[in-house]
Amino acid sequence: MTRKAASAGLSFRPHFKTHQSRAIGRWFREAGVESIAVSSVKMARYFAEDGWYDITIAFPANPNDSRNLDEVARMTRLGCLVESARVAAALDRSLRAPVGVFIKIDTGYGRTGIRFDDRDAIDATVEAIDRADRLELRGFLAHAGHSYQASSIDEIVEINDQTVGRLAAVKSTSRRPEELVASLGDTPCCSVATDFGAADEMRPGNFVFNDMQQVSLGSCAPHDVAVAMACPVVAIHRRASEMIVNCGAVHLSKDTYPSKTNGRSFGRLVLLDGLSRSRPVEGAEVISVSQEHGKVRVPGAILDRLSEGDLVGVLPAHSCLTANLARGYVSIEGRALDHLEGLERRPG
Amino acid sequence: MTRKAASAGLSFRPHFKTHQSRAIGRWFREAGVESIAVSSVKMARYFAEDGWYDITIAFPANPNDSRNLDEVARMTRLGCLVESARVAAALDRSLRAPVGVFIKIDTGYGRTGIRFDDRDAIDATVEAIDRADRLELRGFLAHAGHSYQASSIDEIVEINDQTVGRLAAVKSTSRRPEELVASLGDTPCCSVATDFGAADEMRPGNFVFNDMQQVSLGSCAPHDVAVAMACPVVAIHRRASEMIVNCGAVHLSKDTYPSKTNGRSFGRLVLLDGLSRSRPVEGAEVISVSQEHGKVRVPGAILDRLSEGDLVGVLPAHSCLTANLARGYVSIEGRALDHLEGLERRPG
Repeated sequence: MTRKAASAGLSFRPHFKTHQSRAIGRWFREAGVESIAVSSVKMARYFAEDGWYDITIAFPANPNDSRNLDEVARMTRLGCLVESARVAAALDRSLRAPVGVFIKIDTGYGRTGIRFDDRDAIDATVEAIDRADRLELRGFLAHAGHSYQASSIDEIVEINDQTVGRLAAVKSTSRRPEELVASLGDTPCCSVATDFGAADEMRPGNFVFNDMQQVSLGSCAPHDVAVAMACPVVAIHRRASEMIVNCGAVHLSKDTYPSKTNGRSFGRLVLLDGLSRSRPVEGAEVISVSQEHGKVRVPGAILDRLSEGDLVGVLPAHSCLTANLARGYVSIEGRALDHLEGLERRPG
Repeated sequence: MTRKAASAGLSFRPHFKTHQSRAIGRWFREAGVESIAVSSVKMARYFAEDGWYDITIAFPANPNDSRNLDEVARMTRLGCLVESARVAAALDRSLRAPVGVFIKIDTGYGRTGIRFDDRDAIDATVEAIDRADRLELRGFLAHAGHSYQASSIDEIVEINDQTVGRLAAVKSTSRRPEELVASLGDTPCCSVATDFGAADEMRPGNFVFNDMQQVSLGSCAPHDVAVAMACPVVAIHRRASEMIVNCGAVHLSKDTYPSKTNGRSFGRLVLLDGLSRSRPVEGAEVISVSQEHGKVRVPGAILDRLSEGDLVGVLPAHSCLTANLARGYVSIEGRALDHLEGLERRPG
């Protein structure tokens, strides 16, 4: 992804909400990455304390959380998101230190942001930021999360082109466009598209691990999924070609991906041998989960090789949520890697 | 539920996997409860360390986790689940201390357990336990999890009657039935049914909080839901009658309940006033979630009273998963309550 951003002439600001790990963050730094995105003030602080000096919190700023924003702004070059003149003014009143601000633009996803064609609201927000003493406009930011609902590669490319076009138009019609950044980034678009037009920055996050949702979108191949949840087999039901693993909604969350054999599945089986793992097992999927249980459909020939107590791996539907529940990692070299939510395992 | 178990002549063994809290567990003890169910060895240890002396781990025992089982068995009267002669024999080989054993019976849910009518497998498992040096058969245990798919109160009662009948039949046709326990328990059946036939013990868990899934099943009323996720409003979209809250899949998980207005919803809005909360707001539901964002449909009159930064509450679709993600509670008296997963907040 580093190479792709460079060849497209974009700055690369990977989103660290997927891994939430200082150890993994350092791998990015070794690859020359200097700026990152995160999804909370707490996450910004976690990485600022590990020496990241340019952090955008890609989540709408809460004006009632200004004391924490102030603290993090003293540690790093902080960027915040606003999507209304009202919040911009409230932030300016409550902040003590200056922060950079991106205006969130809704280019079609329909979740957050000012609609790309709502020129009045965009202008009013720009003016509120210009009037503010503690806010500095840095640019416009979009997240094309509807790429996750695309049904083909072509549709992902179409969403990307539309996002790029709409975001670039917002920027080019603003005052001082040459000083402003147009930032986009979702893993499907960044993985699949090659033309990012007049955009300046990409912020994908999920690609660091990928997951079965990305596989089914066509963003990556099954063997590109770089995390597996290790879990013990606790019951084998040979007649049904199923097994129960201790891998439920408290391990995987409850996200799914479209599956040919099961409608929606929660994960794909890999076999573990110490720290190494097999390719994803053909036809072996987590077909249902409850709090602690996962039910896995497994071809008979594979089931015959397994016993209760064996460890197997599950490639999750959604790696961000699974990593957040696991709160830590073991690398294939056997190293324990931190996760923000696993405070007791924080490295020094 | 304590009164209901008593009036039905059942022992009450509440499942603590929903709250996972020592502080909340003590409220049960004050109500006279002496025996509990949990869903992991780690959870058994957490409550054993808080003075619970009779704990059933209502999850299939992992024969490769016998060192931890041994440790907990020294602290409490421990019950384990097995569902095959093979695992019974493996457990007996690996355990050092004796433990009580329940045979898990599948009365119709189709997740774990020996099918109620597979007499050969049940007998073989009983014999393996009888032959074992370290296993003592305590009884038969069922979980009618399919009650969560019921579409009416009548259907829940039907599932309960079938479960009770099938479990009692397994027990009555075994040797020494008078020494054995027939244990059942899922919140919908235990909330709705009144006749538990020849069953001996009930083990519901979710009822301690309830949630929007229980509301939609008819197990409780909306104001019976006893937990809310507090979260800030971060964006208000008046034209769409929507707001964005910082309450996504990392707060609520991704479970849903059937909703008249939205097909499936993730939670229901309540307004907060300090530590007290309103009744559930009519027509206000979390209609989608991503990792950190929740999108809430809100009637205009309510939306007009809210600003970015305000705290609101969400009654979750599935309280067990939400509590597991929150890892702690604040009671309506302002007390911080522990959760097993919030290790840093453990009470002394």
